[in-house]
Amino acid sequence: MLRTHNCGELRLEDATKQVTLCGWVQKVRDKGGMIWIDLRDRYGITQLVFDESKSPKAAIETARKLGREYVIQSVGTVVERYAKNDKMPTGNIEIDVEEIRILNPSIVPPFTIEDETDGGDELRMKYRYLDIRRNPVRKSLELRHQMLQQTRQYMDGQHFMEVETPVLIKSTPEGARDFVVPSRVNKGEFYALPQSPQTFKQLLMVSGIDRYFQIVKCFRDEDLRADRQPEFTQIDCEMSFITRDDILSTFEGLIRHLFKQVLHYDLGTVVHMSYDDAMKYYGNDKPDLRFEMQFSEIDDLVKGKGFSVFDDAEIVVGICAPGCAEYTRKQLDELTEYVKKPQIGAKGLVYSKYNIDGSFKSSIDKFYSQEDQQRWADRMGARPGDLMLILSGPVTQTRSALSELRLKMGTALGLRTRNVFKALWLLDFPLLEWDEASQRFHAMHHPFTSPTPEDMDKLGTDPGSVKANAYDLVINGVEIGGGSIRIHDKKLQQQMFNALGFTEVEAKKQFGFLLDAFEFGAPPHGGIAFGFDRLCAMFGGSDSIRDYIAFPKNNSGRDVMIDTPSTISQEQLDELSIALKQEEKA
Amino acid sequence: MLRTHNCGELRLEDATKQVTLCGWVQKVRDKGGMIWIDLRDRYGITQLVFDESKSPKAAIETARKLGREYVIQSVGTVVERYAKNDKMPTGNIEIDVEEIRILNPSIVPPFTIEDETDGGDELRMKYRYLDIRRNPVRKSLELRHQMLQQTRQYMDGQHFMEVETPVLIKSTPEGARDFVVPSRVNKGEFYALPQSPQTFKQLLMVSGIDRYFQIVKCFRDEDLRADRQPEFTQIDCEMSFITRDDILSTFEGLIRHLFKQVLHYDLGTVVHMSYDDAMKYYGNDKPDLRFEMQFSEIDDLVKGKGFSVFDDAEIVVGICAPGCAEYTRKQLDELTEYVKKPQIGAKGLVYSKYNIDGSFKSSIDKFYSQEDQQRWADRMGARPGDLMLILSGPVTQTRSALSELRLKMGTALGLRTRNVFKALWLLDFPLLEWDEASQRFHAMHHPFTSPTPEDMDKLGTDPGSVKANAYDLVINGVEIGGGSIRIHDKKLQQQMFNALGFTEVEAKKQFGFLLDAFEFGAPPHGGIAFGFDRLCAMFGGSDSIRDYIAFPKNNSGRDVMIDTPSTISQEQLDELSIALKQEEKA
Repeated sequence: MLRTHNCGELRLEDATKQVTLCGWVQKVRDKGGMIWIDLRDRYGITQLVFDESKSPKAAIETARKLGREYVIQSVGTVVERYAKNDKMPTGNIEIDVEEIRILNPSIVPPFTIEDETDGGDELRMKYRYLDIRRNPVRKSLELRHQMLQQTRQYMDGQHFMEVETPVLIKSTPEGARDFVVPSRVNKGEFYALPQSPQTFKQLLMVSGIDRYFQIVKCFRDEDLRADRQPEFTQIDCEMSFITRDDILSTFEGLIRHLFKQVLHYDLGTVVHMSYDDAMKYYGNDKPDLRFEMQFSEIDDLVKGKGFSVFDDAEIVVGICAPGCAEYTRKQLDELTEYVKKPQIGAKGLVYSKYNIDGSFKSSIDKFYSQEDQQRWADRMGARPGDLMLILSGPVTQTRSALSELRLKMGTALGLRTRNVFKALWLLDFPLLEWDEASQRFHAMHHPFTSPTPEDMDKLGTDPGSVKANAYDLVINGVEIGGGSIRIHDKKLQQQMFNALGFTEVEAKKQFGFLLDAFEFGAPPHGGIAFGFDRLCAMFGGSDSIRDYIAFPKNNSGRDVMIDTPSTISQEQLDELSIALKQEEKA
Repeated sequence: MLRTHNCGELRLEDATKQVTLCGWVQKVRDKGGMIWIDLRDRYGITQLVFDESKSPKAAIETARKLGREYVIQSVGTVVERYAKNDKMPTGNIEIDVEEIRILNPSIVPPFTIEDETDGGDELRMKYRYLDIRRNPVRKSLELRHQMLQQTRQYMDGQHFMEVETPVLIKSTPEGARDFVVPSRVNKGEFYALPQSPQTFKQLLMVSGIDRYFQIVKCFRDEDLRADRQPEFTQIDCEMSFITRDDILSTFEGLIRHLFKQVLHYDLGTVVHMSYDDAMKYYGNDKPDLRFEMQFSEIDDLVKGKGFSVFDDAEIVVGICAPGCAEYTRKQLDELTEYVKKPQIGAKGLVYSKYNIDGSFKSSIDKFYSQEDQQRWADRMGARPGDLMLILSGPVTQTRSALSELRLKMGTALGLRTRNVFKALWLLDFPLLEWDEASQRFHAMHHPFTSPTPEDMDKLGTDPGSVKANAYDLVINGVEIGGGSIRIHDKKLQQQMFNALGFTEVEAKKQFGFLLDAFEFGAPPHGGIAFGFDRLCAMFGGSDSIRDYIAFPKNNSGRDVMIDTPSTISQEQLDELSIALKQEEKA
């Protein structure tokens, strides 16, 4: 080792020890007679000190040559600091330097390597290797490391077998777009990169590996939104001989384990909520349960009083914002503007202030009496000092808009704090959704998702009403994972394909090898997958998964550090028997 | 859970318990009044029993419908077996069945699902999901699971940070062929799949992550030999602020840990051997040290006696095969034929039998006296009863042929047993090798491999003699891992590029972003990578890595189970702006 200790571990009890440290120069302060250097590595910062009156001349000369981010090796004695710094763990000591050696100089970095940096996003991505030197980024990667270890520890402890499934697989026309890989040996043919190991994990169940897991890279060639990556990591799992509740308890256990081990946080009860309830009470299949503010439908209380907006509405639904009765005209106007934005889509906002004195003040007082509004307040559980916010219109759109308003109010009232976590299982999704364009049902998850046991018989008669035996884990309004019990029964599978409008031939063509495998004794099984990047971001208190990926790509799917994708040589194209298509020139 | 226990865990002390088991029907024996069923799952086999005189009729009827590989659920009582089977852990009990339910039928499998199967390779690969139901395959995957967990446990314990490096990276013209991935968003451009995370792990060192590891998929588009896969897994590691010996001891620790934890095997001393010694004493840079049989050069003892074959040879070198003096003419002829095969390449084989009575009998007795041969025996450490086998010719070719003969004799004498493991570090490789075709030096590892500290100064003056600060871990004659201390000094790197005949511009073009990164304070660093598939195969006592991969590809890089690679649609090609090239028709 080129060092005896790292830069984060020396304490007062190490005083008088001779030590050798290595690291990067964070800062040099040269006060003439004295020089101080902050030496940084992965573990912390230790202060080196040089005193012109006693340190070796050579050491002082070298110290004066140092610049930011030089890599040095330094030998010296641990001494107690005169001016202690209780903000850093090593703040009670410093190193009285005897020897110093430049291991490598550095040119001036393009941004400051400090917790708060002056580097913009694009610059930090280009020099990601310097960005990672910064505490916040390194800590994100350390968190991810811990999440990886703890996930596997839990899964191994539960007798899940880790199996690596292939990366070079087959392109399937369903789902998102595949990335493909031309085969040189099999000319004209292509591999595809997996969007998930779905079929392989189901095959593993057929193989008798009754508990499988893997933390695995997946790939989707989608048009990227702000927080999507073309390659991402998921915790992928599948179990045999289980029911839905076995999956829920096993993976609630995983999440609870991670919170406990990584954040030392005791995750409370994980609520079970049906899709219908989530839509009815939160307008959203990913409700943020850090705060209440449930929806109250008041159609029966408002109709027939001459207010045509409500009279004509499919639904009239409100929330109660606690303590907001004092909102000013301006604040209320802002809320109205907000819900009327095209991406929110409400036509307008009705409010009713439940004043401290017990009176009501609403935007539609001429239609509704104080008693009317008292009834709304009773329904919504509003108390004096609260503000009722009411939207109306078509059901889906109105719920969705009110959901956004609820989240906005939650944020405004400080009810969505990063260090509180509320998890729920969202259950009983619809199995199918009707697609107007193709005039047929589509699978909401995938065609192997089983109906709930209660709804098995309705698949032939009333497919639209069938619930899926599927589940999502939602934490703080973010979908963290999801999965389903799969169909393992041939007859049921055929019914499902019928409902989806597939012929047997089409089904065989698209899912042939899985259907073949199912002929040889497929056990009842189900599984789940968690978005690992997102899970890490949530644990780290960030909205951006990019912070938790060592070398992420930008919104164009480009790695600006290594500058890829990039052109390849004509020889490579020739070997692969492919050609670039020339774009038509205008 | 659909079961209360698995098929491997019930014992005599569970007798009288009511249990529910799930699994696959391994075997049905119907003796009229009694039916026995072997029920199998991942954990073992448990015997179910039906007695016409007392079991419920419905259960017996269902039992008679069962075929091989049906999936069933069975409720019954654990009872002591009359005829115990001490070959299976559950052999003391059986289940007196009360209820049985077919969870899924099975068509007849294409081969028997037993330890010894009648299925050929190709068939088992096509139905790999059935092959995995077989004990030997499942056990290989279980071993792999353990290797994965234990590797990470050790690395985490040594404070290595697991970092996932990207899979969609940049194509580089050096090294083996890349698999490439056309980018739809960036038309005409391509990603490449990593042959290894080499540059990323070096960047992580520049980032200050002083200990990195990852168990990672890598990809090489090579023409496949019997035991290569286009995608394979490696344990990839890198460390900063270390010397070679720190790496050797850290990773000797890893391997020792794996042997201890997975095989309960105490790996003895790991020998350090120079490349030169390996070639001199074993004719091979991957010597199998499970047995001695070192080479002895006897040029000085044999020249000038009128035997022109030896007189004209660059080298005359032999091994002593203990206890083989009794070899028959036929056996010796077979050895001669063996070394004369084109792939071995010797011109002929000289033997000298050291008979029990102390006399010598050689194929060249007319040139060499008994005293001459005694001197050979002294040099080779031969004793009465041993057989000396001698080759001569050009140095490299002769050593290589003798190495093959040594291995053959080791096998013949039963000295290469699968349950003994001998490891060594092979050190001090040549840094460069001269390429006659291009009339320049090539890097034996890669251009970032550092010379040994002693040879630093010779890079400018005598590059051919410079040793690399590189190391391979060899176990039982198989290279399991390798790596090197990297160059972190700019001047040295420039010298290396000069020696390789690169201009600064060319170097910049090929290794630009890494060289850029090295400007910002690169620490001294080095690393290693282990072939994980091969390591698992060695631990499992197999020569074939394919047995240790859940879903391997065949020698044409094809997955015959999912039938990939395969054609993709014209729409997909169009979206990617590529076209298939039509082959010229004859």
